[in-house]
Amino acid sequence: MAGRLTRRTKVTRFAPDGTSTVREDALAVEEPLEIRVGGTSLSVTMRSPGDDFDLVAGFLVSEGVIWSADQLVSMRFCAGTDDNGLQTFNVIDAELSADTPPLDVSLERHVYTSSSCGICGTASIDAVHKAAHFGHLDDASSWTGELLGSLPDRLREGQKVFDRTGGVHAAGLFDASGALLCLREDVGRHNAVDKVVGWALREGRLPLTGTVLQVSGRASFELVQKAHMAGIPVLAAVSAPSSLAVEHAESAGMTLLGFSRDGGFNAYAGPHRIC
Amino acid sequence: MAGRLTRRTKVTRFAPDGTSTVREDALAVEEPLEIRVGGTSLSVTMRSPGDDFDLVAGFLVSEGVIWSADQLVSMRFCAGTDDNGLQTFNVIDAELSADTPPLDVSLERHVYTSSSCGICGTASIDAVHKAAHFGHLDDASSWTGELLGSLPDRLREGQKVFDRTGGVHAAGLFDASGALLCLREDVGRHNAVDKVVGWALREGRLPLTGTVLQVSGRASFELVQKAHMAGIPVLAAVSAPSSLAVEHAESAGMTLLGFSRDGGFNAYAGPHRIC
Repeated sequence: MAGRLTRRTKVTRFAPDGTSTVREDALAVEEPLEIRVGGTSLSVTMRSPGDDFDLVAGFLVSEGVIWSADQLVSMRFCAGTDDNGLQTFNVIDAELSADTPPLDVSLERHVYTSSSCGICGTASIDAVHKAAHFGHLDDASSWTGELLGSLPDRLREGQKVFDRTGGVHAAGLFDASGALLCLREDVGRHNAVDKVVGWALREGRLPLTGTVLQVSGRASFELVQKAHMAGIPVLAAVSAPSSLAVEHAESAGMTLLGFSRDGGFNAYAGPHRIC
Repeated sequence: MAGRLTRRTKVTRFAPDGTSTVREDALAVEEPLEIRVGGTSLSVTMRSPGDDFDLVAGFLVSEGVIWSADQLVSMRFCAGTDDNGLQTFNVIDAELSADTPPLDVSLERHVYTSSSCGICGTASIDAVHKAAHFGHLDDASSWTGELLGSLPDRLREGQKVFDRTGGVHAAGLFDASGALLCLREDVGRHNAVDKVVGWALREGRLPLTGTVLQVSGRASFELVQKAHMAGIPVLAAVSAPSSLAVEHAESAGMTLLGFSRDGGFNAYAGPHRIC
């Protein structure tokens, strides 16, 4: 549960000169979370414990299952226990509203499918591209280079777990005035984004028009897709984007920034939003 | 498909002083690969194209499906096509030998499961821990701090795609003399490791006794588990390990190094192998 984000451990430090010393170090805690909907398991993700309801909510948005807070009737921890009989808090079951469309078979297909080779290369690969509820993002927000260039430092300032462990990624959501709306850290890059998106869903803020999401690492296809599913028009990464990240951002009408460092950045898609 | 590792794109560079210029940039290519066994789809992974047979072989080792080259009878690209009717080379079907144990239900459970809440917190989460064919690693190899401290630079020297894109992870396998056996780059950290492990399987080298695997990023539980499944006694990461990575390395009898930089490193598990 909350507060178990880091764990102390003994570490042997080997210096370049061949000497070694034993000292204490802090580790970022990583634990599995199983996500269920109506008792059916959808996914197991390795994550930093904490903000788990946000993680589940954001995962369901990213997968195209829900897009509005009223579709999420309830979430609860299931009674998993560890070897000592203690509650693990590592299984969450979500209940969706009756009018939520049934789970898309493509979601099932994405994680497990059985098919003959006759439909090779269509069903499962196609499922990688999810239907975005908010469609093409024609968000008219405009951003100064100065504001966008300042975000990596502002994200870094908020990374409290990183300060202690050096072992977690971060995602920060900012509005057009540069105000930080939500920042989440996680051992998994995708989880940090899901936690921000889940927070926004539960706050009734989707689609996230007029916001920018700054992430600490690279921009993969998966992160661009998650931002798209939440209606975030601008995604900025500290490191490089992949080819598919750029292609998806372009087709989704998004602005994609990479190598966002030291006040400068590259725009790989949607430079029209930068003034 | 070899040779499609990077793609050129136009990028607008915004400098800190507010000026902008348009120039060409290289992107690391990212595409989905669907992995099938006997026509049944197990997983879709976003990966750098190339060494795809190694990726599939390594994935099957990591998942505990196979551990010997003779269990892998054949692999072939299925006839998926894109919008222009061209072969995508993004679906591979593997055929396993008749004496390979049938796919573990835990693998199925890991990616998709349906169960009542009565067994909450057991079946699916347990499936995260896979049975390691090579068991507890009592490998007696011994390593100097000097050799281990030199590996990050040697890995970096071999990262040709990173040089062009800044957007890929790497995994390099070295033997006890410090010789580089295999280096793979990929947009996904786990894929780079699977490609190295798959190469080793197909070369008949499993278990990888007397080797060290140096990776470019952090050490997650998943990476430690992959190394364990391949019988690699020493895993070294440039960045931080997670709590579960350390716990799993300890229970597997592995040596786990983190913050391996500038000739020094931290030993989080198994320091007895360092002399």
